[in-house]
Amino acid sequence: MKIGIVGLGLIGGSLGFDFQAQGHEVIGVSRREETCQQAIDLGVVQTASTHLAALEAAEVVFLCTPLDRLIPIAHSLIPHLNSATIVTDVGSAKATIVQTLEPLWPNFIGGHPMAGKAESGLTVAQGGLFHKKPYVLTPTAQTPNPALTTVTGLVQGLGATLYTCPAEAHDRAVAWISHLPVMVSASLLAACDRETDAQVQTLAQHLASSGFQDTSRVGGGSPELGVLMARYNRAAILASLDQYQATLTQVHTWIEQEDWSALTAFLEQTQRQRPAYLE
Amino acid sequence: MKIGIVGLGLIGGSLGFDFQAQGHEVIGVSRREETCQQAIDLGVVQTASTHLAALEAAEVVFLCTPLDRLIPIAHSLIPHLNSATIVTDVGSAKATIVQTLEPLWPNFIGGHPMAGKAESGLTVAQGGLFHKKPYVLTPTAQTPNPALTTVTGLVQGLGATLYTCPAEAHDRAVAWISHLPVMVSASLLAACDRETDAQVQTLAQHLASSGFQDTSRVGGGSPELGVLMARYNRAAILASLDQYQATLTQVHTWIEQEDWSALTAFLEQTQRQRPAYLE
Repeated sequence: MKIGIVGLGLIGGSLGFDFQAQGHEVIGVSRREETCQQAIDLGVVQTASTHLAALEAAEVVFLCTPLDRLIPIAHSLIPHLNSATIVTDVGSAKATIVQTLEPLWPNFIGGHPMAGKAESGLTVAQGGLFHKKPYVLTPTAQTPNPALTTVTGLVQGLGATLYTCPAEAHDRAVAWISHLPVMVSASLLAACDRETDAQVQTLAQHLASSGFQDTSRVGGGSPELGVLMARYNRAAILASLDQYQATLTQVHTWIEQEDWSALTAFLEQTQRQRPAYLE
Repeated sequence: MKIGIVGLGLIGGSLGFDFQAQGHEVIGVSRREETCQQAIDLGVVQTASTHLAALEAAEVVFLCTPLDRLIPIAHSLIPHLNSATIVTDVGSAKATIVQTLEPLWPNFIGGHPMAGKAESGLTVAQGGLFHKKPYVLTPTAQTPNPALTTVTGLVQGLGATLYTCPAEAHDRAVAWISHLPVMVSASLLAACDRETDAQVQTLAQHLASSGFQDTSRVGGGSPELGVLMARYNRAAILASLDQYQATLTQVHTWIEQEDWSALTAFLEQTQRQRPAYLE
């Protein structure tokens, strides 16, 4: 199959590795000539170009740019495609993207491969990145069956664990487990910075160990990614934040009122809840 | 030196291992006969007893019980000691303990070895647990010099990194990096449980990966420990929670008002802040 990939970073590059290994013909598109050459040298793509016209013959195109580039890229890409071409994306928020792209290109299906690394870019792309990782597809009632079947087959070929659900369900789920944690974790770092006693702050920095490091990890991640999540999944993040703030207020009240039996019951419940979120 | 250890769990047992290895004579006290025998068999102590009177000859006594047992145990222990005996504790909150124990026993110095494991109890005790880990001592203006010098020497013998500060500074620092994270992390789990759509909640559980797992880790820990932290470090936790809630409210406002430049600046700052808290 001829597969186009627009955006040759960690995700686009890693998809290219796997598809090439499976014997597909991968055509890459990047804004930078240098990245195109690098992708060819690495074996991520068979051919690469800085022009979207290179994707004319592609049967499936994966849009692998950052979230805020997906819609502009789709607008530029469409004039070069024939109506049989299936377009899919890898954006980490789905409802806005699906609602915008489906009317533009009916042969579209939204997707979200949930694999990542601390680093980004083509140089850290790797084969097998999606193996046993979740890959969510968000078809609508209008999604053509061949588009769903073809992309499903490609996702299964990656060895990924496929989930199919409405875009809105995806967005609410990732708000809880991916986007809210970024805000929760970043706010922990920011709150510590509000400590006015320099001795206490320095001591806190020295005493911090694995517990603080784990809780603060995703809050120290890419600011660009954090803002894109908030922009493209705004409603779901706000709803999750509301629930989170209400929970914290309750915890504050229990501690203030020294209601240790309520706090005990709460922490017993969270201890019981956590295993359901572990692999 | 004759060293007494009251409470033969992870911390008491691990101190015993190291002190015995250094040639000190360790006398253990546990409420349970079975634990005494086990401690002798493991080589954690030289002798062990269920009676505090066994510590009559001890030169230094480490109180290694849970936080809420420290003060009652000290009351029971004191009648058996001679005034030269130095008493120290390993509690994770210090001001309340120091304010209560110092008037009872002037030859007292508060301490907090910051090493732990996911599991607790004597069976997971080990030599070298405190090596390169922070050990905080919280002397006051009244602490006798020999007590400070002796306990400092023992802490250095463990290979721990010694910090000396007022109990109040310790409590504020650990509220930020240890106690607040427990409430932040537990509230994340509890908020997710408020999701009313079962499909979304199940999907969230399946999609959760390392980011969620790290952010929620300390919130899924021991309820008993979490409640003891809140009880014995209540004022500092409440102050930290106030700052944290104010920070979250700001984040909520930025997302609500789509102030992406403010959110970007915020996440850039937290990204810059985090390395100061890493080892």
